[in-house]
Amino acid sequence: MALHEGRRFDPTLYLVTDPVLAGPRGVVETVRQALDGGVTLVQLRDPEAKTRALCETAAALLEVTRPRGIPLVINDRVDVMLAVGADGVHVGARDMAPGLVRRLTGPDAIVGLSITTLEELAAADLGPVDYIGASPVHATPTKTDTGPALGLDGLARLRAATDLPIVAIGGLHAGNVRAAVEAGADGIAVVSAIMAAADPAAAALVLRGATGL
Amino acid sequence: MALHEGRRFDPTLYLVTDPVLAGPRGVVETVRQALDGGVTLVQLRDPEAKTRALCETAAALLEVTRPRGIPLVINDRVDVMLAVGADGVHVGARDMAPGLVRRLTGPDAIVGLSITTLEELAAADLGPVDYIGASPVHATPTKTDTGPALGLDGLARLRAATDLPIVAIGGLHAGNVRAAVEAGADGIAVVSAIMAAADPAAAALVLRGATGL
Repeated sequence: MALHEGRRFDPTLYLVTDPVLAGPRGVVETVRQALDGGVTLVQLRDPEAKTRALCETAAALLEVTRPRGIPLVINDRVDVMLAVGADGVHVGARDMAPGLVRRLTGPDAIVGLSITTLEELAAADLGPVDYIGASPVHATPTKTDTGPALGLDGLARLRAATDLPIVAIGGLHAGNVRAAVEAGADGIAVVSAIMAAADPAAAALVLRGATGL
Repeated sequence: MALHEGRRFDPTLYLVTDPVLAGPRGVVETVRQALDGGVTLVQLRDPEAKTRALCETAAALLEVTRPRGIPLVINDRVDVMLAVGADGVHVGARDMAPGLVRRLTGPDAIVGLSITTLEELAAADLGPVDYIGASPVHATPTKTDTGPALGLDGLARLRAATDLPIVAIGGLHAGNVRAAVEAGADGIAVVSAIMAAADPAAAALVLRGATGL
């Protein structure tokens, strides 16, 4: 499938935000520094935020991502994406169905879907989807409402089952991202490895290098 | 301002849903019974629900509201409104700004705004707004994150300050709704007085009669 121009993206190093892990530095400043280190895609994720605050954070993030040509996708919230003109939405099994997301966002939006098992992948409506978030590859303390880890074997099985770009997430750090890429990931996503880093730019640079991509 | 056809509504008896208060009877069945008792407007409110579940509940509610010509508005979530084709959105100070809501929902949607003080009303962007939810008129255990109660005096001051329809909410029951209407409310909104009622149809009938509207 030929992607619309607006849906081209580089999945190599995907940063998912977390306001708690960002601490007093804040999400926007952390992302700004991480972009300097080579982050290629940003997802705003803050399920606890009220809508007004989420819109404000999204608008502030766009001011640092857009001049650098880096897409910003919003976790779960099509309304926030549309309100600020962000680049896409990332959804999971308990969020809006991908077909509805695509209908509301239009053809130019990037639509990502979290997949936790091979069965879920087989049952998913992938037509509207631009990439898969394979989650969690390893156990992670960042997100505790997940199923068992896929492992590298599970990641490889997803790889064999779809031609969509796969972004691996869950328990990834510089020491294990290469293995995830070798198992079939087109990119790796992190939360704490960058959001909680003392130096987000350096952390991003090291992670990107470690992928071998 | 002439309302678009799709934005005509009767604010007399406005039901705000609550899945906990509905109990095992469920939100949809409670609303169905309440509509039989004369509810004129329904708001789906469930800030804890995940988006997929909220869309499903909204779609199920539309199946009972639409055949009766009763509008369904969604608390906070423009995305859910657009996904299911509901009739409008109700927002508060921490939700999406009314101007953004109107831009995303289009001219036919009903847009409601919660107002808790006269100062908030004066500062609000009311151009995109179809009605005010004056909240809370009286102290209420249903919603604890509110400011001090407006009281009937505060309600009367809001009435004097705007020509928009005002729906009073907070601590209302058959014994005090008439006083709220006499203070200037065009309609009254309830949560527990109907959602938690043993007989939602009877509760709605009694409330509607008690308003004197």
